[in-house]
Amino acid sequence: MTSAEPWLTFAGSPLDREAVRRRDHAWLEARLADQASRFLPLWRLQPLVKSGGSRALAWARREFFADLEPTPEPVLLGSVGDVAHFAVDVSSAPRPEEFGIGDVARFEDLRGVAPLLAFEEAAISAQARSLVDWHARHRFCAACGAGTRAVFGGAQRTCAECHAEHFPRTDPVAIALVVRGDRCLLGRQAAWPAGMYSALAGFVEAGESLEETVRREIHEESGVVVGAVRYWRSQPWPFPSSLMLGCIADAESEAVRVDPAELEDARWFTLAQVRASLAGGRGEPGLPPPLAIAHQLLRAWSAGELR
Amino acid sequence: MTSAEPWLTFAGSPLDREAVRRRDHAWLEARLADQASRFLPLWRLQPLVKSGGSRALAWARREFFADLEPTPEPVLLGSVGDVAHFAVDVSSAPRPEEFGIGDVARFEDLRGVAPLLAFEEAAISAQARSLVDWHARHRFCAACGAGTRAVFGGAQRTCAECHAEHFPRTDPVAIALVVRGDRCLLGRQAAWPAGMYSALAGFVEAGESLEETVRREIHEESGVVVGAVRYWRSQPWPFPSSLMLGCIADAESEAVRVDPAELEDARWFTLAQVRASLAGGRGEPGLPPPLAIAHQLLRAWSAGELR
Repeated sequence: MTSAEPWLTFAGSPLDREAVRRRDHAWLEARLADQASRFLPLWRLQPLVKSGGSRALAWARREFFADLEPTPEPVLLGSVGDVAHFAVDVSSAPRPEEFGIGDVARFEDLRGVAPLLAFEEAAISAQARSLVDWHARHRFCAACGAGTRAVFGGAQRTCAECHAEHFPRTDPVAIALVVRGDRCLLGRQAAWPAGMYSALAGFVEAGESLEETVRREIHEESGVVVGAVRYWRSQPWPFPSSLMLGCIADAESEAVRVDPAELEDARWFTLAQVRASLAGGRGEPGLPPPLAIAHQLLRAWSAGELR
Repeated sequence: MTSAEPWLTFAGSPLDREAVRRRDHAWLEARLADQASRFLPLWRLQPLVKSGGSRALAWARREFFADLEPTPEPVLLGSVGDVAHFAVDVSSAPRPEEFGIGDVARFEDLRGVAPLLAFEEAAISAQARSLVDWHARHRFCAACGAGTRAVFGGAQRTCAECHAEHFPRTDPVAIALVVRGDRCLLGRQAAWPAGMYSALAGFVEAGESLEETVRREIHEESGVVVGAVRYWRSQPWPFPSSLMLGCIADAESEAVRVDPAELEDARWFTLAQVRASLAGGRGEPGLPPPLAIAHQLLRAWSAGELR
């Protein structure tokens, strides 16, 4: 990543994804057997994280999950130099205590622990969580209903019956900070903490450009008409497998009419209000945490970097 | 779409996708029964297109597919005013002749016919093709293997057994014109027509930003190191369901080392060569057709709109 792009949490993985060698069965088997290989255990989608001091991923050896029934199939994440890194789903253990790790490490919710990890490790965890989740939910072929098996280190699943090939999903999401002069449009869902507002977002649908998704979603959710849309930056978001495509968009109307199925409220906030909230003020709007691209969009806009 | 964004083929649908009303079963049933509703038949993913004069989609009434066994389930595309538009998969007919349409209309390959359609109709066809294809390949639940059924006019499928919800896929693809001074990097696959070259592209993987995908793919396929990446524009690409995210990227190295599993060749071409090809010259590089975002990226770069 060049210096022109400040880190967004969950981007910045140092791993080489091994697009060529992961197709070589013998290479993969050797990496799985290699004592130098590192395995990141995830239990019910929570990565294993060291408990003490500065937080870091707790990489394990193959012995860690050798006794589980059935033996889990590790998913290749990539390499650093000659060292292969895998994620492994250990959810078949009924309780994390079974691993006998005591207080040394804990399985942690990724959303909570990510801000405490080095950026590189947050990025590796994001890839691991998305892939482990996808494999767990794709044991069967969507085309014929038969069982599928992972191939190429988990870069694909193939149907044993009809031979259909299935690939991990990445779901593009348009997230837009809609602005008009020195005000921006933010919305909130009923389930969020009181007073919290964020940028509006929605999945890109079939037959739609990113820019069209921004206009459709903003209009559906808030009634506001959007004109020009400018892409800013993107972020992988592993809950479960989104690609957040951050945009800034110019409003061409002001009246807000909220779709109650999507939002509890949507409102215009001033630059001064957003700056106060970013500076730690406790008034409205409450904002999403810094790991969210919505926070970084607001920070960049309030700093005058986006117009 | 604002005037700042020239059309890219397959974007620009005039339909309101009815995100709210498509969840209302009674409204949907009434639209399915309404004689004013329009149905676009697709046979083996080919939309029905009128044969004579200027080409246009051949919208049908419900009677068109009423005799098919089993009765196909139309997928809601959206509305224009009060008129609902659906796509309907009529692939269960063994031959298109069975519909008795004679020479009035033909099922046509979308890639071939799209440049002959109005932009609005190419966009509707793209949405229809992606959704019909997704439904045909997702009759079963990837989580448990049981049967799924379409709900909300085909905006979702739900598992009859485990109640897992499945949504149509949109696969984000990074496509980048890599430039260095007055030269750009283009590659070709062995299966392409002789002399044809295009911008390099690849799917965004789990735990990756768009910008990271550009750098990884370009390096994997060509060995070239990429620095800054600038997003240009996006395009839906219904073969089967991609979102093409067009970028321009600055090369930081020149030596080309092709990955033979991906490309047959990759090479630097000069601005003069690209301009000659865009102007209809028959030398190398042969270029993809105007409906491809790669063509439009090259056009914009050669016109000095992208640096």
